[in-house]
Amino acid sequence: MKRNFTIACFAIFVLSIFTTVNLYASEEPIPFDPLPVMQFPTDNAYSIEKAQLGKMLFFDPRLSGSNWIRCSTCHDPALGFSDALPRTIGNGQKELGRHSPTVINTGYNPVQFWDGRAKSLEEQALGPIQAEGEMNQNLDDLVKELNDIFEYVRLFKQVFGEEGITPINIAKAIATFERTIVSRNSSFDKYLAGDKKAMSQNAINGMNIFMGKARCMLCHNGPNFTDNEFHNIGVKPAGPLKMDNGRYAITKAIDDKGAFKTPTLRHITKTAPYMHNGTEKTLHDVIEFYNSGGDVKKNLSPLMAPLNLTKKEKDELVEFLKTLEGEDIIITLPLLP
Amino acid sequence: MKRNFTIACFAIFVLSIFTTVNLYASEEPIPFDPLPVMQFPTDNAYSIEKAQLGKMLFFDPRLSGSNWIRCSTCHDPALGFSDALPRTIGNGQKELGRHSPTVINTGYNPVQFWDGRAKSLEEQALGPIQAEGEMNQNLDDLVKELNDIFEYVRLFKQVFGEEGITPINIAKAIATFERTIVSRNSSFDKYLAGDKKAMSQNAINGMNIFMGKARCMLCHNGPNFTDNEFHNIGVKPAGPLKMDNGRYAITKAIDDKGAFKTPTLRHITKTAPYMHNGTEKTLHDVIEFYNSGGDVKKNLSPLMAPLNLTKKEKDELVEFLKTLEGEDIIITLPLLP
Repeated sequence: MKRNFTIACFAIFVLSIFTTVNLYASEEPIPFDPLPVMQFPTDNAYSIEKAQLGKMLFFDPRLSGSNWIRCSTCHDPALGFSDALPRTIGNGQKELGRHSPTVINTGYNPVQFWDGRAKSLEEQALGPIQAEGEMNQNLDDLVKELNDIFEYVRLFKQVFGEEGITPINIAKAIATFERTIVSRNSSFDKYLAGDKKAMSQNAINGMNIFMGKARCMLCHNGPNFTDNEFHNIGVKPAGPLKMDNGRYAITKAIDDKGAFKTPTLRHITKTAPYMHNGTEKTLHDVIEFYNSGGDVKKNLSPLMAPLNLTKKEKDELVEFLKTLEGEDIIITLPLLP
Repeated sequence: MKRNFTIACFAIFVLSIFTTVNLYASEEPIPFDPLPVMQFPTDNAYSIEKAQLGKMLFFDPRLSGSNWIRCSTCHDPALGFSDALPRTIGNGQKELGRHSPTVINTGYNPVQFWDGRAKSLEEQALGPIQAEGEMNQNLDDLVKELNDIFEYVRLFKQVFGEEGITPINIAKAIATFERTIVSRNSSFDKYLAGDKKAMSQNAINGMNIFMGKARCMLCHNGPNFTDNEFHNIGVKPAGPLKMDNGRYAITKAIDDKGAFKTPTLRHITKTAPYMHNGTEKTLHDVIEFYNSGGDVKKNLSPLMAPLNLTKKEKDELVEFLKTLEGEDIIITLPLLP
């Protein structure tokens, strides 16, 4: 899989050098499908009560050992469900190694975390709650704590029946809320649906550069603008981790050293700073990064060759990325018992 | 002032012992005025843009030195604009000495903080931002940081003209937002306005105990259920502070040793735990505290004599306190630049 992908990348890379024209002209159909309706797993079907309960838990500091840190502390709806920090901060107010990934559109991801170590949002949800460096909560203690809050007992019973409050039901409720957080109706979506006025000419030019000369689409493809794969794009280390092997820690495959999940580009205007360790402050910085072929030149796939973009092309690319911002995601705070 | 008050307390205390009947019968007019319309100071008039800007700042972690702690971390609308902790937690995730006071109805307070050290909400707002143990932010740095965020520059200019981003304008915006946070239309308010079905008979009984035998109204009087004075009610020390002199630290008046501001009782169901250091978990616990005459018996004003309430009277008092919960205060999270 990984090897086939690398070969494909290399082929397209060589092709793009020799063609020197955009791979897609604006008259041709845009090779993107619209974002599908969110699917809920059969063992965790959607209900409005479950999503509302999950939202309560998402904002409740009592989910952390300190009773002070919420899921929303690092996945703050006011900040694109991230936290505006390069690397997020966890228990004890200590900086962690990676940037807080947005919750937006994570319901579309086949795996979760920058290194893909969780196979579902349900599995993901219990990770940070328990992690010593994040929310530092013991799950047995959490179940006891929530069982002391009458309204939670009532709500879990309403949603999960006699099972009531269990770690997996906590995770199921949170995951259900998270699957409702979707970036919709961006200018790009409207353009894709046929409204040719939804994007400026500069943004359309940017889209063609995105698909062509800048080769962004090699990884940022599909309706959610991610291949859901892992790549080493040569980001320099920063923060408390001197080295971060990324996906390699999970697979032990040598190709995965320093590889991180391709993040969605939807709503990207709201989730700065960028990269797995937050080293790029703005979208312009990200484009400069790719244009120069990355910070660290070894072990990279051929897709990281320099791009030679002009100033105008870089600006147009940013204009295109801006069109991926969906409608505002408006969150009303729950009232906690 | 303080002395007159003590004499008055003592007189009413003696009176209540000798009368052994409730001071107010349910047929008489209730000695409470409705909550007045919030007043905005002439040097910080209300505008919707200013309140919205203040709301953004209230939820923005970049107001703290760590860029991680928000005003809303400890004054969380999901938790009655407090934090459900006995004593709040500040910079470095360290427990502080006092319970986070709610923002609800603080616009009615003549002074702010448990010890009344700030004369206005504007003055208050800059306290926790700068306090090393709370948000640990240098104001010059904060002004620089906000000036780097284009949308904030634009909004401050819109609201404050050429003055733009200054510490006092940050404070003015936050204070304006806070003055919009009011507990309205409680069952008690409806009852007071003439809807005799708005309170149960138990709650009406509780109101009479509140005004009579339990003497709550000696301090919790006026439309906001506070005399805006400071009293030592004999709460035992708890948390990191071995001793907390309260108001004494500000006035150096011996009468103020261990005295703290009478908090509002409006929306009291949403702001547990109670007391300046959060030592009472529930409203029942608070009533037990007063019923027994406080934890610490020395230096108390005579109003702290034991109450000899029956179980039924205690339950009815709680039922009355529940009627002070206003309509839900629904907060939509701002989208931060």
